[in-house]
Amino acid sequence: MSENCIFCELGNERIIGQCDMTTTFLDTYPASPGHTLIVPKRHIATYFEVTTAEQNAIAKAIQKAKLLLDNEFSPDGYNIGVNNGEAAGQSVKHLHVHLIPRYLGDVKNPKGGVRWVIANKANYDIKG
Amino acid sequence: MSENCIFCELGNERIIGQCDMTTTFLDTYPASPGHTLIVPKRHIATYFEVTTAEQNAIAKAIQKAKLLLDNEFSPDGYNIGVNNGEAAGQSVKHLHVHLIPRYLGDVKNPKGGVRWVIANKANYDIKG
Repeated sequence: MSENCIFCELGNERIIGQCDMTTTFLDTYPASPGHTLIVPKRHIATYFEVTTAEQNAIAKAIQKAKLLLDNEFSPDGYNIGVNNGEAAGQSVKHLHVHLIPRYLGDVKNPKGGVRWVIANKANYDIKG
Repeated sequence: MSENCIFCELGNERIIGQCDMTTTFLDTYPASPGHTLIVPKRHIATYFEVTTAEQNAIAKAIQKAKLLLDNEFSPDGYNIGVNNGEAAGQSVKHLHVHLIPRYLGDVKNPKGGVRWVIANKANYDIKG
Protein backbone atom coordinates (compact mmCIF):
# COMPACT_ATOMS: atom_id res chain seq x y z
CA MET A 1 0.00 0.00 0.00
CA SER A 2 1.40 3.34 -1.00
CA GLU A 3 -0.11 6.68 -0.12
CA ASN A 4 -1.48 8.70 -3.00
CA CYS A 5 -1.39 5.76 -5.38
CA ILE A 6 -4.67 5.55 -7.28
CA PHE A 7 -4.16 1.82 -7.88
CA CYS A 8 -3.74 1.16 -4.15
CA GLU A 9 -7.06 2.88 -3.48
CA LEU A 10 -9.41 1.52 -6.10
CA GLY A 11 -13.11 2.03 -5.51
CA ASN A 12 -15.12 -1.19 -5.45
CA GLU A 13 -17.36 0.08 -8.24
CA ARG A 14 -14.46 -0.18 -10.70
CA ILE A 15 -13.43 -3.71 -9.81
CA ILE A 16 -14.51 -6.56 -12.10
CA GLY A 17 -12.39 -9.31 -10.58
CA GLN A 18 -9.84 -10.04 -7.90
CA CYS A 19 -7.87 -12.69 -6.08
CA ASP A 20 -5.64 -12.46 -3.02
CA MET A 21 -2.81 -11.01 -5.10
CA THR A 22 -4.40 -9.09 -7.97
CA THR A 23 -7.21 -6.71 -8.83
CA THR A 24 -8.84 -6.37 -12.25
CA PHE A 25 -10.76 -3.25 -13.26
CA LEU A 26 -11.87 -1.20 -16.24
CA ASP A 27 -9.52 1.54 -17.40
CA THR A 28 -10.79 5.07 -16.77
CA TYR A 29 -9.55 6.29 -20.16
CA PRO A 30 -10.24 3.23 -22.32
CA ALA A 31 -8.38 2.92 -25.60
CA SER A 32 -11.23 0.64 -26.69
CA PRO A 33 -14.49 -0.71 -25.25
CA GLY A 34 -13.56 -3.10 -22.45
CA HIS A 35 -9.99 -1.84 -21.92
CA THR A 36 -9.02 -3.52 -18.66
CA LEU A 37 -6.14 -3.24 -16.21
CA ILE A 38 -4.76 -5.95 -13.96
CA VAL A 39 -2.64 -4.85 -11.00
CA PRO A 40 -0.88 -6.68 -8.19
CA LYS A 41 -2.24 -5.70 -4.78
CA ARG A 42 1.31 -5.10 -3.62
CA HIS A 43 2.60 -1.69 -4.63
CA ILE A 44 5.46 -2.37 -7.02
CA ALA A 45 6.40 -0.27 -10.00
CA THR A 46 7.29 -2.71 -12.76
CA TYR A 47 6.78 -6.23 -14.03
CA PHE A 48 10.43 -6.95 -13.24
CA GLU A 49 9.66 -6.84 -9.51
CA VAL A 50 6.92 -9.49 -9.39
CA THR A 51 7.35 -12.64 -7.35
CA THR A 52 6.63 -15.95 -9.07
CA ALA A 53 3.34 -16.16 -7.18
CA GLU A 54 2.32 -12.67 -8.33
CA GLN A 55 3.34 -13.42 -11.88
CA ASN A 56 1.16 -16.54 -11.83
CA ALA A 57 -1.75 -14.68 -10.32
CA ILE A 58 -1.46 -11.94 -12.95
CA ALA A 59 -1.39 -14.50 -15.77
CA LYS A 60 -4.51 -16.18 -14.37
CA ALA A 61 -6.22 -12.81 -14.00
CA ILE A 62 -5.46 -12.01 -17.65
CA GLN A 63 -7.08 -15.27 -18.74
CA LYS A 64 -10.13 -14.68 -16.55
CA ALA A 65 -10.56 -11.10 -17.75
CA LYS A 66 -10.28 -12.24 -21.37
CA LEU A 67 -13.23 -14.62 -20.87
CA LEU A 68 -15.30 -11.87 -19.25
CA LEU A 69 -14.50 -9.49 -22.09
CA ASP A 70 -15.17 -12.11 -24.78
CA ASN A 71 -18.58 -12.55 -23.28
CA GLU A 72 -19.38 -8.86 -22.89
CA PHE A 73 -17.73 -7.30 -25.95
CA SER A 74 -16.86 -10.11 -28.44
CA PRO A 75 -13.69 -8.41 -29.66
CA ASP A 76 -11.65 -9.68 -32.62
CA GLY A 77 -8.31 -9.66 -30.80
CA TYR A 78 -6.42 -8.43 -27.77
CA ASN A 79 -3.25 -6.55 -27.03
CA ILE A 80 -1.60 -7.32 -23.72
CA GLY A 81 0.94 -4.76 -22.62
CA VAL A 82 2.96 -3.30 -19.81
CA ASN A 83 4.76 0.04 -19.70
CA ASN A 84 7.76 -0.23 -17.40
CA GLY A 85 9.25 3.15 -16.59
CA GLU A 86 8.42 6.69 -17.68
CA ALA A 87 10.52 6.29 -20.84
CA ALA A 88 8.15 3.46 -21.77
CA GLY A 89 5.09 5.64 -21.21
CA GLN A 90 4.22 4.59 -17.66
CA SER A 91 2.27 7.23 -15.70
CA VAL A 92 1.00 5.52 -12.56
CA LYS A 93 3.98 4.00 -10.80
CA HIS A 94 2.13 0.86 -9.74
CA LEU A 95 2.50 -2.06 -12.14
CA HIS A 96 -0.54 -2.47 -14.35
CA VAL A 97 -1.05 -4.87 -17.21
CA HIS A 98 -3.21 -3.51 -20.02
CA LEU A 99 -5.65 -5.90 -21.68
CA ILE A 100 -6.93 -4.00 -24.69
CA PRO A 101 -9.72 -5.57 -26.73
CA ARG A 102 -9.36 -4.91 -30.45
CA TYR A 103 -12.06 -4.67 -33.06
CA LEU A 104 -11.70 -5.04 -36.82
CA GLY A 105 -11.51 -1.55 -38.26
CA ASP A 106 -10.71 0.21 -34.97
CA VAL A 107 -7.58 1.60 -36.64
CA LYS A 108 -6.77 1.85 -40.33
CA ASN A 109 -3.70 -0.37 -40.10
CA PRO A 110 -3.44 -2.47 -36.93
CA LYS A 111 -0.34 -4.34 -38.15
CA GLY A 112 2.54 -4.10 -35.70
CA GLY A 113 0.32 -3.78 -32.62
CA VAL A 114 2.54 -3.00 -29.66
CA ARG A 115 5.30 -1.88 -32.05
CA TRP A 116 3.30 1.35 -32.23
CA VAL A 117 4.90 2.43 -28.95
CA ILE A 118 7.56 3.77 -31.35
CA ALA A 119 5.28 4.88 -34.15
CA ASN A 120 7.87 5.59 -36.83
CA LYS A 121 9.14 2.02 -36.51
CA ALA A 122 5.78 0.29 -36.46
CA ASN A 123 5.40 -0.01 -40.20
CA TYR A 124 7.53 -2.79 -41.52
CA ASP A 125 7.12 -4.57 -44.82
CA ILE A 126 7.95 -8.14 -43.99
CA LYS A 127 6.48 -10.41 -41.38
CA GLY A 128 7.90 -10.11 -37.88
CA MET B 1 6.25 -27.41 -34.90
CA SER B 2 4.34 -25.97 -37.80
CA GLU B 3 5.53 -25.94 -41.38
CA ASN B 4 6.29 -22.55 -42.86
CA CYS B 5 6.31 -20.86 -39.47
CA ILE B 6 9.37 -18.63 -39.18
CA PHE B 7 9.29 -18.87 -35.38
CA CYS B 8 9.35 -22.68 -35.53
CA GLU B 9 12.47 -22.56 -37.69
CA LEU B 10 14.70 -19.98 -36.03
CA GLY B 11 18.34 -19.99 -37.02
CA ASN B 12 20.75 -20.45 -34.12
CA GLU B 13 22.49 -17.18 -34.96
CA ARG B 14 19.42 -15.21 -33.90
CA ILE B 15 18.94 -16.95 -30.56
CA ILE B 16 20.15 -15.17 -27.41
CA GLY B 17 18.57 -17.48 -24.86
CA GLN B 18 16.44 -20.56 -24.47
CA CYS B 19 15.02 -23.13 -22.09
CA ASP B 20 13.12 -26.33 -22.74
CA MET B 21 9.92 -24.39 -23.40
CA THR B 22 10.94 -21.00 -24.81
CA THR B 23 13.31 -19.32 -27.23
CA THR B 24 14.52 -15.72 -26.97
CA PHE B 25 15.90 -13.83 -29.98
CA LEU B 26 16.41 -10.39 -31.42
CA ASP B 27 13.61 -9.00 -33.59
CA THR B 28 14.47 -8.73 -37.29
CA TYR B 29 12.72 -5.36 -37.59
CA PRO B 30 13.58 -3.81 -34.24
CA ALA B 31 11.46 -0.92 -33.02
CA SER B 32 14.45 0.04 -30.86
CA PRO B 33 17.99 -1.23 -30.21
CA GLY B 34 17.67 -4.54 -28.39
CA HIS B 35 14.05 -5.26 -29.37
CA THR B 36 13.65 -8.89 -28.35
CA LEU B 37 11.03 -11.58 -28.85
CA ILE B 38 10.25 -14.50 -26.58
CA VAL B 39 8.34 -17.43 -28.07
CA PRO B 40 7.13 -20.75 -26.73
CA LYS B 41 8.69 -23.68 -28.58
CA ARG B 42 5.23 -25.13 -29.03
CA HIS B 43 3.41 -23.63 -31.99
CA ILE B 44 0.43 -21.81 -30.51
CA ALA B 45 -1.08 -18.61 -31.79
CA THR B 46 -1.93 -16.55 -28.73
CA TYR B 47 -1.10 -15.98 -25.09
CA PHE B 48 -4.51 -17.35 -24.19
CA GLU B 49 -3.39 -20.84 -25.19
CA VAL B 50 -0.33 -21.17 -22.93
CA THR B 51 -0.13 -23.84 -20.27
CA THR B 52 0.83 -22.77 -16.76
CA ALA B 53 4.30 -24.22 -17.33
CA GLU B 54 4.74 -22.25 -20.55
CA GLN B 55 3.45 -19.09 -18.93
CA ASN B 56 6.01 -19.51 -16.15
CA ALA B 57 8.80 -20.21 -18.61
CA ILE B 58 7.87 -17.14 -20.65
CA ALA B 59 7.85 -14.94 -17.54
CA LYS B 60 11.29 -16.23 -16.54
CA ALA B 61 12.58 -15.68 -20.07
CA ILE B 62 11.34 -12.07 -19.96
CA GLN B 63 13.24 -11.46 -16.73
CA LYS B 64 16.42 -13.07 -18.10
CA ALA B 65 16.24 -11.13 -21.36
CA LYS B 66 15.75 -7.90 -19.44
CA LEU B 67 19.01 -8.48 -17.53
CA LEU B 68 20.87 -9.20 -20.78
CA LEU B 69 19.47 -6.08 -22.40
CA ASP B 70 20.18 -3.92 -19.33
CA ASN B 71 23.77 -5.02 -19.58
CA GLU B 72 24.11 -4.53 -23.32
CA PHE B 73 21.96 -1.46 -24.00
CA SER B 74 21.22 0.25 -20.64
CA PRO B 75 17.74 1.38 -21.68
CA ASP B 76 15.59 3.72 -19.60
CA GLY B 77 12.47 1.55 -19.66
CA TYR B 78 10.78 -1.40 -21.33
CA ASN B 79 7.49 -2.14 -22.98
CA ILE B 80 6.29 -5.72 -22.78
CA GLY B 81 3.58 -6.59 -25.25
CA VAL B 82 1.69 -9.27 -27.08
CA ASN B 83 -0.51 -8.93 -30.15
CA ASN B 84 -3.20 -11.60 -30.08
CA GLY B 85 -5.00 -11.88 -33.38
CA GLU B 86 -4.77 -10.00 -36.66
CA ALA B 87 -7.11 -7.29 -35.38
CA ALA B 88 -4.51 -6.66 -32.66
CA GLY B 89 -1.71 -6.37 -35.22
CA GLN B 90 -0.35 -9.91 -35.08
CA SER B 91 1.44 -11.01 -38.25
CA VAL B 92 3.23 -14.25 -37.40
CA LYS B 93 0.65 -16.68 -36.01
CA HIS B 94 3.01 -18.09 -33.39
CA LEU B 95 2.77 -16.40 -30.00
CA HIS B 96 5.60 -13.94 -29.44
CA VAL B 97 6.11 -11.60 -26.53
CA HIS B 98 7.78 -8.33 -27.46
CA LEU B 99 10.31 -6.88 -25.02
CA ILE B 100 11.02 -3.41 -26.35
CA PRO B 101 13.77 -1.39 -24.67
CA ARG B 102 12.93 2.31 -24.45
CA TYR B 103 15.30 5.24 -24.40
CA LEU B 104 14.61 8.75 -23.18
CA GLY B 105 13.82 10.85 -26.24
CA ASP B 106 13.13 7.91 -28.58
CA VAL B 107 9.71 9.40 -29.24
CA LYS B 108 8.49 12.93 -28.59
CA ASN B 109 5.78 11.86 -26.16
CA PRO B 110 6.12 8.32 -24.79
CA LYS B 111 3.18 8.72 -22.39
CA GLY B 112 0.59 6.02 -22.86
CA GLY B 113 3.03 3.38 -24.09
CA VAL B 114 1.04 0.38 -25.25
CA ARG B 115 -2.07 2.58 -25.52
CA TRP B 116 -0.53 3.67 -28.82
CA VAL B 117 -1.92 0.51 -30.43
CA ILE B 118 -4.95 2.77 -30.92
CA ALA B 119 -3.14 5.99 -31.64
CA ASN B 120 -6.05 8.41 -31.47
CA LYS B 121 -6.83 7.19 -27.94
CA ALA B 122 -3.30 7.24 -26.61
CA ASN B 123 -3.25 10.85 -25.57
CA TYR B 124 -5.13 11.29 -22.38
CA ASP B 125 -4.85 14.18 -20.01
CA ILE B 126 -5.16 12.58 -16.63
CA LYS B 127 -3.12 9.77 -15.13
CA GLY B 128 -4.09 6.24 -16.08
